Amino acid sequence: MEHEEARTRVIIEGVEPEINSGRFPIKRIIGDKVVVEADIFADGHNVLSAILLHRKEGDLNWNEVPMEFLANDHWRGSFVVSELGHYQYTFVAWVDRFKSWQQKLAKKVEADQDVSMDFLEGAQLIEEASQRARKSDAGNMQKWAESLRSNQVSPSAKAKLALGNKVTAVMAKYSDKRCAVTYPKELVVVVDRGKAGFSTWYEIFPRSCMSEAGHHGTFKDCERRLPYISEMGFDVLYFPPIHPIGYTSRKGKNNTPKAKPDDPGTPWAIGSKEGGHKAVHPQLGTLEDFRRFVSKAQEYGIEVALDLAFQCSPDHPYVKEHPEWFRWRHDGTVQYAENPPKKYQDIYPLEFETENWQELWEELKSVAIFWIEQGVRIFRVDNPHTKPFAFWEWLISEIKKDYPEVIFLAEAFTRPKIMYWLAKLGLSQSYTYFTWRNAKWELTQYFTELTQTDVREFFRPNLWPNTPDILNDYLRDGGRPAFMTRLVLAATLGANYGIYGPAFELCENRRKDKESEEYLNSEKYELKQWDIKSPSSLKDFIALVNGIRRENPALQSDLTLCFHSVDNDQLICYSKRTEDLSNVILVVVNLDYRYKQSGWVDLSFEELGLDYDQPYEMHDLLADSTYRWQGARNYVELDPQKIPAHIFRIHQGITKSRNYRIMRKRG
Amino acid sequence: MEHEEARTRVIIEGVEPEINSGRFPIKRIIGDKVVVEADIFADGHNVLSAILLHRKEGDLNWNEVPMEFLANDHWRGSFVVSELGHYQYTFVAWVDRFKSWQQKLAKKVEADQDVSMDFLEGAQLIEEASQRARKSDAGNMQKWAESLRSNQVSPSAKAKLALGNKVTAVMAKYSDKRCAVTYPKELVVVVDRGKAGFSTWYEIFPRSCMSEAGHHGTFKDCERRLPYISEMGFDVLYFPPIHPIGYTSRKGKNNTPKAKPDDPGTPWAIGSKEGGHKAVHPQLGTLEDFRRFVSKAQEYGIEVALDLAFQCSPDHPYVKEHPEWFRWRHDGTVQYAENPPKKYQDIYPLEFETENWQELWEELKSVAIFWIEQGVRIFRVDNPHTKPFAFWEWLISEIKKDYPEVIFLAEAFTRPKIMYWLAKLGLSQSYTYFTWRNAKWELTQYFTELTQTDVREFFRPNLWPNTPDILNDYLRDGGRPAFMTRLVLAATLGANYGIYGPAFELCENRRKDKESEEYLNSEKYELKQWDIKSPSSLKDFIALVNGIRRENPALQSDLTLCFHSVDNDQLICYSKRTEDLSNVILVVVNLDYRYKQSGWVDLSFEELGLDYDQPYEMHDLLADSTYRWQGARNYVELDPQKIPAHIFRIHQGITKSRNYRIMRKRG
Repeated sequence: MEHEEARTRVIIEGVEPEINSGRFPIKRIIGDKVVVEADIFADGHNVLSAILLHRKEGDLNWNEVPMEFLANDHWRGSFVVSELGHYQYTFVAWVDRFKSWQQKLAKKVEADQDVSMDFLEGAQLIEEASQRARKSDAGNMQKWAESLRSNQVSPSAKAKLALGNKVTAVMAKYSDKRCAVTYPKELVVVVDRGKAGFSTWYEIFPRSCMSEAGHHGTFKDCERRLPYISEMGFDVLYFPPIHPIGYTSRKGKNNTPKAKPDDPGTPWAIGSKEGGHKAVHPQLGTLEDFRRFVSKAQEYGIEVALDLAFQCSPDHPYVKEHPEWFRWRHDGTVQYAENPPKKYQDIYPLEFETENWQELWEELKSVAIFWIEQGVRIFRVDNPHTKPFAFWEWLISEIKKDYPEVIFLAEAFTRPKIMYWLAKLGLSQSYTYFTWRNAKWELTQYFTELTQTDVREFFRPNLWPNTPDILNDYLRDGGRPAFMTRLVLAATLGANYGIYGPAFELCENRRKDKESEEYLNSEKYELKQWDIKSPSSLKDFIALVNGIRRENPALQSDLTLCFHSVDNDQLICYSKRTEDLSNVILVVVNLDYRYKQSGWVDLSFEELGLDYDQPYEMHDLLADSTYRWQGARNYVELDPQKIPAHIFRIHQGITKSRNYRIMRKRG
Repeated sequence: MEHEEARTRVIIEGVEPEINSGRFPIKRIIGDKVVVEADIFADGHNVLSAILLHRKEGDLNWNEVPMEFLANDHWRGSFVVSELGHYQYTFVAWVDRFKSWQQKLAKKVEADQDVSMDFLEGAQLIEEASQRARKSDAGNMQKWAESLRSNQVSPSAKAKLALGNKVTAVMAKYSDKRCAVTYPKELVVVVDRGKAGFSTWYEIFPRSCMSEAGHHGTFKDCERRLPYISEMGFDVLYFPPIHPIGYTSRKGKNNTPKAKPDDPGTPWAIGSKEGGHKAVHPQLGTLEDFRRFVSKAQEYGIEVALDLAFQCSPDHPYVKEHPEWFRWRHDGTVQYAENPPKKYQDIYPLEFETENWQELWEELKSVAIFWIEQGVRIFRVDNPHTKPFAFWEWLISEIKKDYPEVIFLAEAFTRPKIMYWLAKLGLSQSYTYFTWRNAKWELTQYFTELTQTDVREFFRPNLWPNTPDILNDYLRDGGRPAFMTRLVLAATLGANYGIYGPAFELCENRRKDKESEEYLNSEKYELKQWDIKSPSSLKDFIALVNGIRRENPALQSDLTLCFHSVDNDQLICYSKRTEDLSNVILVVVNLDYRYKQSGWVDLSFEELGLDYDQPYEMHDLLADSTYRWQGARNYVELDPQKIPAHIFRIHQGITKSRNYRIMRKRG
């Protein structure tokens, strides 16, 4: 054992957050406060000191923040992340000999014991520290040491000096850290831009934005759709793949095995003689049209997100240029995608285990870079769980080196451990099981797991009530009230959410058949003109909800989500709030799309920062009506034929008591 | 990235148990089954295989056990530890290409799809595997491959062959592990002997075993006490320090600062001109007497445990021989022990941070080795939390290298994180907060933490209702019924427990004063003759309880502890059982030492392996009476003036249904 090892008595363990023993970073948004905690202790009865070290990755020097002792050997520290990229943090702790001495002295003084020896010991500690001190402090320190030794100074004056603020502050500056312990791991924070944590997505097929029925929509047509999308309040517009579509084995309407000559095929069968992943489908327009569209969208405050769907149609140029990137069958054909008994003959998966994997990975990276160069900074990643984990970790870290602002949304509708692992590897947001969670108990359980456990540190949920692949039973059976309910849930349970439109706002609920969740006449396989001006469209309701999200910062994060009890299983109630309680939102939703439901909510006042003895105002931002509530139990009643939800902003009038509450919460 | 790294697709995480990311071993007893679990998954839809590797430390080769898939990507494996010392275990998992192929084939066959290409693929996999196979298998495998390729064999016969048990078993033997992932840590199990997990301690001051009042008891006197101790059913006899006691600053009766000439001093003030930690206090006898006593005790099935109290009286030979092992004050005296405002002038702590720490540590190790050479294999470690953690980790591992059978009991009455850390470092058992946990809610909470969380993997509780330092309020106020209650709780909540006697069996409950928990006229400071033949002694009751412990293996482990609900907060109910449910014990204790209490217990049938539709017999082993119960809710009534507890052994008659239950539990 090394000399120092034998003399370092401090243990640092139980660090939170720390994902997979520090193998993975935690995720934060620019401006966030990173709060970290650890158990720090030593043998014996000494007083410890601990600091949190943090720095931007690449900086030579650490910033030091003193840690605060909470209770039961548990300490806390925090720092703010103000730039995109990676931050590092770790801990240093030591037996603080001077503070220990002060504590002993104070106890002895209180018990009126003889402390003459203690003063000599303290003088020595101060003198030793003065050797490490700046000149400006060293002089004073020498004088203090002399006073503690002097026969001229009374014991009570010595005690007052030794325990005073001045000595304490200066001695803390020059604390003896020779036996300090440094936590052996440098933990990492990935800092993303705001949109990674708060975003409102709208998915459309650009080819369905045609101005006339039967025509193939173009980027130019999409430009005309921008005001409509912007008025609804979306800030991310996600396009399924915009590349040339293969001809071989192309699927027809409703996924029939053989396409008719004018069937457009699915956009996910990428690649034809007209090009592959870096080309634009000619019927949508040119690459220049796309770039123009991206900047037009920006004018509306909308970012365009593209699909990273790493798979090929049989006609993709890769198949001829790189046959080694595919898996060949014994009959000399390429193995198409299959999930027995399902077959996808129009799609060839890439063989990531090819001997030439490095070339393949580099090519795929160049695809992402290509679209970044066209102005894209958000990608929806198609089925990441069917490609190697190591590939995603490499790809994302490569891209974020130069473009730390890029956001990746994982379309990983797969098993929970795999979803979480992909998030740990670096995918910025993820689709969730929200799509199928309709009952109160399962929403409560799932969102508690997502927001109140370690999962919150690395997994950012993005909630989709529908997608082109999924029209769930609830929407099919519930129609318009169900669409309203699911919209409010997605938009308020999730700081990130999205809808697939115009199917959603037009409450499209016709299924292809009973077995699957596919839409009837899905636009995955055909051109489709939607009647977006339909008077029954939910567009105004969506605009209202998205406006509420924009105006209420409480809804722009998931970390404060808290469920409150309601004595009716068809009613769900939850709140979100800003850290300082200046914005507190309470949502109540009727999950029954058929009948009016009523019940008594029972609010957690502590969580909402409310005073028990004061009435408070509940301003329903959906109906724009205000209620006066008092006490924890209050009556609610929601009619799915009208508005199936309340989104309340809570106001409690008296300023003085509000300040008091904020203070308490911060403490 | 390395080629192999890019192609290994399997993740192994969430390993349980794994203490501090594998920094510390888990603890087991010889013969235990070590059950370990992990999350194992990969991208894609392939089938995985996983094995658990385990070996005795030092063995070159690993033993392999296939792991079983449970659900949700969670796997389990187990192995038995059959020798003292250290075992290692880790995991290997891989994408099983053949099993994946079989699964795909089975699905396609079921869907009546063309599988001709699949058979060719399978043939190739079998042929490749045959290259890795023993000759005895390779021939068959070649034939199977041929059959799958042959035009003479029908598709249905091919499918039957390919999915059959024979092919499956042989292919599992030669599975392609080239891209297998090995878990990067080799986790460790420390295997102790049975007594580390199940022991019954009795503490006495040997000097108080005198045959005549006023005499100083000797080891010879202690020999005469052995039948008494043995009849009560104890198997560990712990002596406070048996070394020469210092004279300087010796404490008098009731811890008064100045001893009278015939005051014997506290045994923890170790060392005088008569010797130090390797000497025997002359008034107790000689080293030979001690050795003789150890072997006499063995004849009674009792092991002698000594105190490792690493501190010195001012007269200890170390003080002169090694002044550098102590902390010197400015007035040229050694710093005595203090915990302001308390002072222990008769005790000098050792300065573990001395420049000569290596010499000091080696000397302390030689102390332990010295007593091991006299036949001692169990040590009670005095205040380990006031010595450096690194020292204990080093000392215990040094000693266990040669003497893996040695057991260390940590007297760490300190903060929870420190208690747990000492257990992680290697101390075999630990004192607990049981001493002060009297209410139902706190016993339930504490013992759930000790036995149903990770703590159970490294921390073995040893429950003491009293010690020479602690006479708690409950015993002081409750008298005899309280002593009975606390005995039953200690003996049944803890597989390891102990009492400080004869104070305990004689229900000594006089306190020195109101402020402290010290005994009046504590034998720490004076000779004391106890009236062990008193008719009010609890010795027969203790013998009965310890007999029940010996005869019921359920009580010899803490891992199956389970609390059952009772509708009376003065009644606590819990069970323990063997893994195979052949021994099931249910304990009900009245915590109120004053009044009779009654209530309805509500048993968890699943936990007890009971059938809902069968009556069962409750044999109270304390009162030797039997009740017939049916259903989960049953009435109990306990009178502290009689016996304040039931210790039931549960019998349910019908053999067939019992077997059924065992099967279900094992599954």
